[in-house]
Amino acid sequence: MTHDDTIRIFAKTLKNLERWMDKAEAHAKAKSFDVDVLAQARLAPDQFSFARQIQAGCDQAKYAAAYLGGKQAPSHPDTETTFAELRQRVQKCLAFLESVPAKDYAGAEDRRVAPPWLGGKWLRGDDYLAHVAIPNFFFHMTTAYDILRHNGVDLGKMDYIGSLPTREG
Amino acid sequence: MTHDDTIRIFAKTLKNLERWMDKAEAHAKAKSFDVDVLAQARLAPDQFSFARQIQAGCDQAKYAAAYLGGKQAPSHPDTETTFAELRQRVQKCLAFLESVPAKDYAGAEDRRVAPPWLGGKWLRGDDYLAHVAIPNFFFHMTTAYDILRHNGVDLGKMDYIGSLPTREG
Repeated sequence: MTHDDTIRIFAKTLKNLERWMDKAEAHAKAKSFDVDVLAQARLAPDQFSFARQIQAGCDQAKYAAAYLGGKQAPSHPDTETTFAELRQRVQKCLAFLESVPAKDYAGAEDRRVAPPWLGGKWLRGDDYLAHVAIPNFFFHMTTAYDILRHNGVDLGKMDYIGSLPTREG
Repeated sequence: MTHDDTIRIFAKTLKNLERWMDKAEAHAKAKSFDVDVLAQARLAPDQFSFARQIQAGCDQAKYAAAYLGGKQAPSHPDTETTFAELRQRVQKCLAFLESVPAKDYAGAEDRRVAPPWLGGKWLRGDDYLAHVAIPNFFFHMTTAYDILRHNGVDLGKMDYIGSLPTREG
């Protein structure tokens, strides 16, 4: 699995998320409530809300592409509070992921990745992907999905996974 | 990221899960309830329980190692209902993951992976990992974590991520 494959799976999952948000909006409309209530929903009082899960998930994808592609990550302040704003955040993230060409990930396994929260220590590019970016990205996407699911949105596993590049013959 | 790296991240996360279960047991003891109540907890009435999330997560890891390593997956029937039984399931899964040597994943990107649920179609090994095994494995681990979190277990992000192979200098 190349680094580009990983970033493309992040992008695919963010596009799947847009479909979950479509279903959340349909659910809110059917039940006559404001969908933006769900943006503040959470599974525990001291866990991130739906909105914050989306922001954090986007950041995991953005920083993975930036660190491994040797780019400066664009700044995306966490100001979104509505579904409309969260959709724009997802779009900004997708645009950045698409801006990094596959060739720029060459040699990324050996890059030094030193995010500020490591306090001066660093991780090899491959270790950053495997131990930080992939588990955290899917953590935030799954928890966003689970928040909607817990609130009655009609989601199933194939909404989570999306389309598969199956082959025949 | 090699195929072996991916399987080792699955194993690491299953070991992290054992620590979440320790914390769930401590919480149950402090609150004087039977921890096995949590084995049946779920976030939505038509979503898998904690026990079923563990079974499904173990299976994602097991089948990834089997399909990509060219092995027959051992049968692990989904009979567990208690924390003690679930811990045994995790141990059986870990033993299988550790039984597949890194060299057996050579060329796995091009293996044909044709699980029965694809109804005769197949996925390239790399596509199976990226589109099925990784998203699904972390889905089940995160949802298990979220079920415990929702029920008041004292978990935080570093319990989810576990130790990091940071470097200095």
